[in-house]
Parts: sequence; C-alpha cells; structure tokens
Amino acid sequence: MAQAGDALTGLAIDIGGSKIAAARFQDGAIVARHRLATDGSLNVAAWIDTVGELLAELGDTSAEPVGVAVTGRVDGEGRWSAINTDTLSAVDGAPLADGLRRRFGPRVAAMNDALAAATGEAIYGAGQGASTMAYLTVSTGVGGGIVLGGRPLTSVDGLAGHVGFMTTQHGDAPCPSGRVGTLESVASGKAIEQAARAGGHEDTDAAGVFDHWRSGEDWAAVIVQRSADAIAEASANLKAALGLEIVVIGGSVGLAEGYLDLVRHALDREPPLFRVEVRPAALGADSPLLGALHMAREAVSEP
Amino acid sequence: MAQAGDALTGLAIDIGGSKIAAARFQDGAIVARHRLATDGSLNVAAWIDTVGELLAELGDTSAEPVGVAVTGRVDGEGRWSAINTDTLSAVDGAPLADGLRRRFGPRVAAMNDALAAATGEAIYGAGQGASTMAYLTVSTGVGGGIVLGGRPLTSVDGLAGHVGFMTTQHGDAPCPSGRVGTLESVASGKAIEQAARAGGHEDTDAAGVFDHWRSGEDWAAVIVQRSADAIAEASANLKAALGLEIVVIGGSVGLAEGYLDLVRHALDREPPLFRVEVRPAALGADSPLLGALHMAREAVSEP
Repeated sequence: MAQAGDALTGLAIDIGGSKIAAARFQDGAIVARHRLATDGSLNVAAWIDTVGELLAELGDTSAEPVGVAVTGRVDGEGRWSAINTDTLSAVDGAPLADGLRRRFGPRVAAMNDALAAATGEAIYGAGQGASTMAYLTVSTGVGGGIVLGGRPLTSVDGLAGHVGFMTTQHGDAPCPSGRVGTLESVASGKAIEQAARAGGHEDTDAAGVFDHWRSGEDWAAVIVQRSADAIAEASANLKAALGLEIVVIGGSVGLAEGYLDLVRHALDREPPLFRVEVRPAALGADSPLLGALHMAREAVSEP
Repeated sequence: MAQAGDALTGLAIDIGGSKIAAARFQDGAIVARHRLATDGSLNVAAWIDTVGELLAELGDTSAEPVGVAVTGRVDGEGRWSAINTDTLSAVDGAPLADGLRRRFGPRVAAMNDALAAATGEAIYGAGQGASTMAYLTVSTGVGGGIVLGGRPLTSVDGLAGHVGFMTTQHGDAPCPSGRVGTLESVASGKAIEQAARAGGHEDTDAAGVFDHWRSGEDWAAVIVQRSADAIAEASANLKAALGLEIVVIGGSVGLAEGYLDLVRHALDREPPLFRVEVRPAALGADSPLLGALHMAREAVSEP
C-alpha cells in the first residue's frame, strides 16, 4: 500500500467489530502496524486507554495527526453510539472525540469506520478520478460512506452514509437497526447465512453459501442473487438521489468472486440513466486507516 | 412574499410542465409578475426566445442576475433533458445554460425546478435553521432537491435530488423513468388517480380521491395511505443515507389537508433514529423563483 497514501504522515486506528488495526504512516508508507482483538464490553475511558497503548506501541511522537475510525455512529459533536449493541455494549453516546482530544491533543479526529474507508477509497483507491461516490462494504453487515466533491459527507446525527439501513424492495425481515426490510437484512453476510439456515442448510456460513452457489446449487444461487439485486437497487437509488459517478463495493461478500458481476448484471436491467458504474474496492483492509488519517489531517488543517 | 427573499434583486423564471411563472424581485420583494401556459413542443431556441420575451415584459435592465428553473434534468454542463418526454418533447440534451448565457450574458443560471424550490425553501422558507434538508414535491409527479450545508446538491449527470425515482417497498408498477416500483409510481397524484381508476373509480382525479378519503371511504383511504407510507419510507431512507435534519414537503398532494399527518404517523413507526422531522413547504408556488434567483446570484458571485 506504499503508493496509496500520498505523503500521508501520522497514525491511524481502526476499531472494528472483531479487531483493532493500527498503523503509523510516513510519507505515504506504512512503517509500523499493530493489531488487537476487540473487547466489545469496554467503555469509552477504556477505549481511550487502548488507543494510548496502541499509539505508544507504534512510536507516536505526540506531534503527528491521528485518525480514529470506529464501528458505530459518531455524531457532529464526536459522541459515539453503537447502532448494533451486540457489537459494542458500553459506548452509548459517549464523548469519544472530546476524550481523545483531551488525552492526545487537537491532532486527533474520530469518525465512523465505513466513512473512513469511503474516504480512503475516494482519495487513494478505487474512487480516484470521480468527484462523487458512495462506498458500500458488504460484509457481516452492510456499511457505507458517501464522498461528495472529494469531501466525506458527515451529519449532526452521525447517520450520514448508513446506507445499509435504507429499505429495499427485496426485503421484509427485521433488521438490528429496528427498521424492516433494510439492505442489511437482505444483502449482508449475516442475512445470507440466516437465509441458508431458514432453508434448512444449517451448517453453512456466508462463505459456504458462495461455495454452494459456485458449485451450481439453486438454493444458494437464489440467496446470493437476492443480495446482489438489493445492492444494485440501492446503487441505482443513490444514483437517483445524489447523481453519483461511481459506487465502490468492498467487504468479504462484496469482493467474493463473481458477486460484483451479479450486481452489474442487475444494474444492466435498470434504465441507462440509473446504471451507476460499480468498482471493487482497491485498498483492502487498509482503507479505513488511510481515510481516517486523511480526515484527521484535513480537520487539523482547517481553521 | 416580501419578507422571504432577503435583499434578493433580479429576475426568475420557472418553466414547469403546465405553466411558466416569471417574476422580478427588488430588495426581496416581488415587484412584477408574468405567467404563460407551457408549450411542451418548443425546442431550446424557442424556449430562449420565450425567456427573452418574459424578461422584457418584466422590465429587465440587462444587469441583474437571472435564475431559470426548468422541469427536467439539467446536467453539469447546463444541458437540458426531459426525463418524462410527455411533458417536454423537444429539449433532449439541449445546451440550455450555454444558449441563455450567449443571449443574456453570464448573469444567467439554469437549474432543475425542484432543486430551485428546495433551495428557496432552505434559504427563505420551511428549511430555515436546518443545515441539511431534502425537499419533496408530491404533485402530478414526485420531484425533489437536496440542500447540504446550505448548498444545493448538483451533479454532473443532473440527477441529484431526483428522489421520486428511488424505489419503494410499496411499489411494483412501471414508472415513466423506466424504473419499477418508484416513489413516483406510488405516491404521486398521477399514481393516486391511476390506482383509483384501476379500482373501478373511473371519474376521479387525485383531489377527488382525497375527498372520498375524507368522507370515510376505505378504498380511498388505502390509496392515500400507501402514498403517505411511501413518502415516509423515502424520508427515513434519506435520513439514513444523508443524516438529514428535516424533510420539507410541498405539492398539491403533499400539502393536501391531512396528508402530512399520515406521513408523520408512518414515520412514528420507524425507530427514533430514523424519524426525520417533516415540515410543510412555506413558500407556495414562489419557492422555485426564490431559489432560482438565489442560485443565479451565488453562481455569479463565485470566482
């Protein structure tokens, strides 16, 4: 990834649902990495201690910008809430950004991890050259981020970019968000696994459903197709609402072999005006790190 | 409307599907008005002649900004296309902005009429005080515009804000856009009328369906409820994607007595995080004029 972050220097931490990734960048290259398992029961004070340990581990000089991307919602005042409390049980509305700045200084910015990934892809990855894009990560859940005119879209409520909680014509099941028939409830890895189990295929996870699909089993094809159809519908909906130039798709489901072709074929059934270009994410697991550090650097340089 | 356009001075023209409204503003007050019926068969050269006649009629001094709002799509290069060719048959991709500037100078800006209305409501109407809003006009069709951080959202393809072409869980009928099951195909006045006719109520238009609903007829209640449910769903979807603070609703259906209450009740069934505040449009038919002139003034003052 050395070529990806043009002259990006500083530190980035990505607190995900299952792991924490951290890296130090120098002139665009990653010069140190660290990784921990996520403890979903930590409260914000304990999370800030964890960030401190990671920064020390990475050789922080206390002078460089620090981007902290987190799973969940970060509102306009930097308060951190879990939308899915199964993942993070003890951070509801906690003042993450304030706590980080009090401890490490104004060089720190906090944001949603999918928005950081969207920003990373927009500036350094698959979104380069487009001024307006959405990033959808189709993984255990469905996350997203929107970048308009090169700037990550944020909002007072911290919801901006949570496209996984938009509804789809292909869905009717309840979603952990409380909404019914969301993109997440149909297209996500968890939804794929649940659909397999509901169909009597108890012993398979999403990756297993893809294996069954590739070996020609109809039941698996129906489930994978429904996921891809919902992602295509959402992409065309975002094109209608925002005039997007491209949609970048990442995540273990989104990047599974053959999946993007299904999404593209589904989009081919839309009228030409709504057929947004779909590209695979290019930065892999480093996109939230690159985007988080980019956003921290921009935040620090703003008046 | 004298209080609405703070110190707005200049001219505005709103070319809609059935009529053309034009006004001259001085220090925020409308000091002259003119109105014509739309001739949907005109080509762009004839439209520009019509604009010239209206400007002369209004006492144009050739010095003030001119905003021209049009039904249909205006792309990033100012080309004008009808999405519904029944309304405008001869403007497909025509260079509207270039033609207007060649004739009347760089003081002229052209934009979609719903985006102009959204901007008018955001700056001078129901959206005041919110930084991020969507405007939905529920009328013969469903149009829309999005204003983020006080700035109207535009896009290279001119689609931005066309929320009527997003899909809904309540729809399965074809839409003139070519998509299937759009908000417009369920919620619009035309959709309400068609649903009534399909149910054997041949002699009624949308206003008639509302009358039947208010006098307690179940068949009409089902149709009106479906429209309101789809608008509520779209509002919550836009809240999820953009973190909107408010949705402003206008149009003859949107502002029909009792309709917004149905939309609000439907939103009350969403989880709290997705219950966006819904407000009625405040500026009536003048919102596209105010927004068009505001956008023209901003365009002229930009470097």
